[in-house]
Amino acid sequence: MNSIQPKAVVLVSGGLDSCVTAAIANRTHQLAFLHLNYGQRTEQRERQAFEDLARDFGVTECLNVDVTHLARIGGSSLTDPGMAVTEADLENKEIPSSYVPFRNANILAVAVSWAEVIGATALFIGAVAEDSSGYPDCRPEFFEHFNHVIDAGTKPDTHIRIHTPIIHMSKAEIIKTGIDLNAPLDQTWSCYQSNDVACGVCDSCALRLRGFQRAGLPDPLPYATRPVYT
Amino acid sequence: MNSIQPKAVVLVSGGLDSCVTAAIANRTHQLAFLHLNYGQRTEQRERQAFEDLARDFGVTECLNVDVTHLARIGGSSLTDPGMAVTEADLENKEIPSSYVPFRNANILAVAVSWAEVIGATALFIGAVAEDSSGYPDCRPEFFEHFNHVIDAGTKPDTHIRIHTPIIHMSKAEIIKTGIDLNAPLDQTWSCYQSNDVACGVCDSCALRLRGFQRAGLPDPLPYATRPVYT
Repeated sequence: MNSIQPKAVVLVSGGLDSCVTAAIANRTHQLAFLHLNYGQRTEQRERQAFEDLARDFGVTECLNVDVTHLARIGGSSLTDPGMAVTEADLENKEIPSSYVPFRNANILAVAVSWAEVIGATALFIGAVAEDSSGYPDCRPEFFEHFNHVIDAGTKPDTHIRIHTPIIHMSKAEIIKTGIDLNAPLDQTWSCYQSNDVACGVCDSCALRLRGFQRAGLPDPLPYATRPVYT
Repeated sequence: MNSIQPKAVVLVSGGLDSCVTAAIANRTHQLAFLHLNYGQRTEQRERQAFEDLARDFGVTECLNVDVTHLARIGGSSLTDPGMAVTEADLENKEIPSSYVPFRNANILAVAVSWAEVIGATALFIGAVAEDSSGYPDCRPEFFEHFNHVIDAGTKPDTHIRIHTPIIHMSKAEIIKTGIDLNAPLDQTWSCYQSNDVACGVCDSCALRLRGFQRAGLPDPLPYATRPVYT
């Protein structure tokens, strides 16, 4: 952290992607960490991962924001207790039931509001186009359009740009990048289902485990089961 | 309300502009009302106005969402108790202290999430470009860019369009339109400062009073003072 560096808000869920994104942002920016609680089943564990990551990166400017109205609005198995979390089907190109409608727009709107107040000029978000199982709000064109919304909707002297440094990486590439940058991957949490031992079978665990397997590296997290994903 | 009509989410703050916008939307759409509590001083009174308006329009599909994180993020006299609400200066072209950074993006993001879940194809918002005292997120280009974000960030079969039917109207024109449509203007609330008798001197009261004066019509609300604005 260098006070001459420009300030960046990093969206840190507590997962692998946001950890590696923070490690990339850390090379060029002074970091501020934003965590969103949108009512997901594993929020308690993700919040802990967020705090562990902030400590590890030495980030003191942190904000936790409750967006649990997304749970009330419903429509997603991540937040609606009435919907089952589907087991992973990595070949499925349909939009999965864990999709929270327009979630990233809600997250980015909060991030821009905070960035404008604290004088940050960059937003880093660990969105991944290929591995995101088809979430429409993880695609590059979504972020490009959102940059135009920021320019049009903030003060004339505010200049905030969204950075998606891992958007074109595979999960294996993200993991290798994290290892190269000494990112604290052991302090992250990815499972959509469980708060203590990762289930190993939800979409998020499957993508993560397959990524480590393809990278030829061991995942430091505990799992209830470690299927081999090809 | 006709079940053949397409469904629209109307953003209803409880003020004059959202009331007239709802009256316009009501001619062509089945309405669902969304109210946001972003921690403004007058939320209690605005919420009452929202409920009165929903009853008057016969709208049963209503959602109240708490976005008080905007208050914690601060930067606005509307939500920050440490900042004074400035008295009106209608000639001032600077962005006023009541500006909540990127507020409309937060509001629209919530509205799109809800619209996608309930199957609405339109969002109506009573933004006004000219009378908005220079809020950047009230300009037509902001909404045009947000429409692109909606297209890019929602499911392929979701088609939601933002409608800003009063954006180019003066306050006097909005009031006349409301009267023409029998909109319940007596049930609205506009004051940024007070919960019972409108102050008459904040930006919002000044714009409203001047609008009624220019329209040559009496404002049905009680005011502590009714300055003549020219």
